[in-house]
Amino acid sequence: MHRSREGWHWTPGTGLQAGIPTIAVVEPSHMIRNPKDSLDVIVIGAGYTGLTAARDTSTAGLRTLLLEGRDRIGGRTWSSDIDGYPYEMGGTWVHWFQPHVYRELSRYGMKDQLVHSTDYSKKHNFFTFKTAAGTRNMSHEEEDALFARAIEKFVNVDGNLGRTIMPFPFNAYWNEDVFKYSNLSVAERIAQISHDLSSDERHAIEAFVLLCSGGTRENSAFLDFLRWWAAANYDYKTLLDTIIVFKLKCGQSGFARRFFEEALISGNLSYSFNAPVAAVDSSKGLVEVRTKDGQRFLAKKVICTAPLNVLENIEFNPPLDQAKREAAALKHVNQCVKVHAEVKDPEMRSWSGVTYPHNKLVIGVADGTTPAGKTHCVFFGCDANHMHADEDIDQTLGAIKEFGPMEVDRVVFHNWSKDEFAKGAWVWYRPGMEVQYLEALRRRQGSVLFANSDWAAGGWRSFIDGAIQSGTEAALTVRQELRPVSRTSHL
Amino acid sequence: MHRSREGWHWTPGTGLQAGIPTIAVVEPSHMIRNPKDSLDVIVIGAGYTGLTAARDTSTAGLRTLLLEGRDRIGGRTWSSDIDGYPYEMGGTWVHWFQPHVYRELSRYGMKDQLVHSTDYSKKHNFFTFKTAAGTRNMSHEEEDALFARAIEKFVNVDGNLGRTIMPFPFNAYWNEDVFKYSNLSVAERIAQISHDLSSDERHAIEAFVLLCSGGTRENSAFLDFLRWWAAANYDYKTLLDTIIVFKLKCGQSGFARRFFEEALISGNLSYSFNAPVAAVDSSKGLVEVRTKDGQRFLAKKVICTAPLNVLENIEFNPPLDQAKREAAALKHVNQCVKVHAEVKDPEMRSWSGVTYPHNKLVIGVADGTTPAGKTHCVFFGCDANHMHADEDIDQTLGAIKEFGPMEVDRVVFHNWSKDEFAKGAWVWYRPGMEVQYLEALRRRQGSVLFANSDWAAGGWRSFIDGAIQSGTEAALTVRQELRPVSRTSHL
Repeated sequence: MHRSREGWHWTPGTGLQAGIPTIAVVEPSHMIRNPKDSLDVIVIGAGYTGLTAARDTSTAGLRTLLLEGRDRIGGRTWSSDIDGYPYEMGGTWVHWFQPHVYRELSRYGMKDQLVHSTDYSKKHNFFTFKTAAGTRNMSHEEEDALFARAIEKFVNVDGNLGRTIMPFPFNAYWNEDVFKYSNLSVAERIAQISHDLSSDERHAIEAFVLLCSGGTRENSAFLDFLRWWAAANYDYKTLLDTIIVFKLKCGQSGFARRFFEEALISGNLSYSFNAPVAAVDSSKGLVEVRTKDGQRFLAKKVICTAPLNVLENIEFNPPLDQAKREAAALKHVNQCVKVHAEVKDPEMRSWSGVTYPHNKLVIGVADGTTPAGKTHCVFFGCDANHMHADEDIDQTLGAIKEFGPMEVDRVVFHNWSKDEFAKGAWVWYRPGMEVQYLEALRRRQGSVLFANSDWAAGGWRSFIDGAIQSGTEAALTVRQELRPVSRTSHL
Repeated sequence: MHRSREGWHWTPGTGLQAGIPTIAVVEPSHMIRNPKDSLDVIVIGAGYTGLTAARDTSTAGLRTLLLEGRDRIGGRTWSSDIDGYPYEMGGTWVHWFQPHVYRELSRYGMKDQLVHSTDYSKKHNFFTFKTAAGTRNMSHEEEDALFARAIEKFVNVDGNLGRTIMPFPFNAYWNEDVFKYSNLSVAERIAQISHDLSSDERHAIEAFVLLCSGGTRENSAFLDFLRWWAAANYDYKTLLDTIIVFKLKCGQSGFARRFFEEALISGNLSYSFNAPVAAVDSSKGLVEVRTKDGQRFLAKKVICTAPLNVLENIEFNPPLDQAKREAAALKHVNQCVKVHAEVKDPEMRSWSGVTYPHNKLVIGVADGTTPAGKTHCVFFGCDANHMHADEDIDQTLGAIKEFGPMEVDRVVFHNWSKDEFAKGAWVWYRPGMEVQYLEALRRRQGSVLFANSDWAAGGWRSFIDGAIQSGTEAALTVRQELRPVSRTSHL
């Protein structure tokens, strides 16, 4: 078991410590099979996008180099291995309605790895709703009814729960009327329906949508939420099922390793971790990629998977086009705070709660039972009332305990806002930003392709699914361009 | 444009003629790139399973031979090209909730190809319900309400609409209580709930389930329906959306060609159409595949994609194991009759109907508008009250007109029951058969792998999705076995 330098781990005994054991760390951290100037493709970044791209190019016989700034695979998705238990530091939940991720789970024979985050069989089987209007507990049925009612009002721009305005989640602009909503913020959408909202419903919408966007009501686009809703079949229960119910027993890093191992076994993969990329020069024949420590590699193609919020940290020559530079400078809004707590009472396993808007953490849900038999709860905050969980651990513990009395034996988290290779969590656009920049972000520049869930084509953009989709697409393009068309084809 | 010898085409002017133009026919029909004894893998069958397998092995650098008995790709799924219009002769509808098929659609950039079969904007916007209890028209809302209510009673074995008994459609035996239903027939399930069914509801269940199974009430397993229902999120509207609403503008053959062309471009694919396989001999070192016309090919591995109902037509040495032979002799029950009609009145575009149990066709739905501006309707029959649509075209026309007054200008169909390479449509097991034989059907025998949607692992077994899943899985196994594990792997 290796330890990543990333993530934070607190127990009453040890206090707050940097670094977490995880199967996501690869040793040895460098393995260069091919001369530095004989590569077909360099993939920058070993998140799911880069892992998928590198796997698909290497298994197709292309000499592939994977460069990663971190000491581990997975990017914004990785899991701990603390006493064998996978706390998910970032991306977590998957569903068979997410075609790209589920195709991979089924391909790797992992259907038995799916487990429920929810378990309503324990004693503390209720939902705590703590808002400006007071605190009360309700049943999960009441919770679901409240949130479903509220969210349906929020998305119902067409009197058909969004089905008319966005009938194809993977083709979101199919009905061009959807552009009427491209500049709408979450705050503005709430204002449109505020006459029809109870105090509970308004708090429910705000807490839920901020859990999704990681931003503020003002800077979060309504359109992203509409797409999530459409992808989840215009149904609150299905939305929950697809975004926060089913996770992997082996942890996301157990899944990510499958991609990496398959690539490795192809015999065509070289890789280097702890190798952040400084510059990409495609002004000459081959593309040159230079790492911060001065290594230079040449390849026919480059697939850059750096996320939007750190894209400007790489120097491109020729420079990124104007639109990409604008989007990279604007950045997306998701500054999600995700904090895991191991809570002594095993009966908390059936609990969930909202504390909003006064608390630094907005939503909490029981997420598992740890090897010690305690309850694993996970809490989410956002850019509204943001905190850096590592800067003041007492404040972090206080925000957890604001949800109710809990004896916290362990806290685990990753500060994505400070993360130099992410500067945020999954993508959530500002109002207007998606329609203005998405196409530009997807555009290649010569031999450099840009792939990331942040601008994936599909309904599950910002999800692991979008990452795999984007990596798949980039690898296919590269393969088609680097393999000559068969001369015997008669089609 | 080439013409397949398969399918039937009738117009008032021409009468009934064999053969249909289609882009599924490949010319030249043979292309052998590699010596017959230097193959890595032979894929038997060019349906979606075989196309996926051959694509994945050939693009991974394995010398692949695809052998197909027909003159075309697609197996049980192919589309006409009559005046550029794709009548779907078999498999038709897809959805983004079907992970394997949608991953491929998105990978090939085909999201714009999805079109709605339904269009409720025209004048004849109603549902005809013609049963033993009489005939009446209702609105599509009334139709959906009736079918939803009836089907929910049918599947509700656990008081939770199937969610408890089958929480993971891709892992159908996760809750072992499901085995209680493994021997149940559709007729027996209806008997269990008959006290709670109106005459309308009973007719609705029978017509709908027989549309799905293609069998009879007595020989169709309840368990298959429960899996479809679970895969469609335990919801009637979603079930419709996933099985009969979204199809491809370019026709299924336009999609299937993408797989074939990608394989061809790899430079590693040889193929031979009109080359039915007679025998597979894996008793020696390499596997020998012999075609009916006496050609012999040798390969390290064979992926046999022959469907269940024709598996016994290939001679295996060593012979198929006992369980496979039993299952192949029993056969599955689906003898679906699918007949397309081009109907003069364009206002029929919004129509649907059921005629049951007296008619040879059970369900009809408007499915498109033809290039001539007429309505394309598609009709389904099953093994109960079965007909061979080609044997008595007047009977076929009569069965169509039993749904209501229609001026029929064209009829197009494929007789799957007589098809020597299918002997039926998509898989639907007999009661007890799935649990008894599924595992055995999935089992390899030495270097011979068996892949088909008929025994795919997933929730969409019997769909195009299951075919792609099964082909993906077989190709991955072959690739892993034929490529040596990298010695530099340190994982």
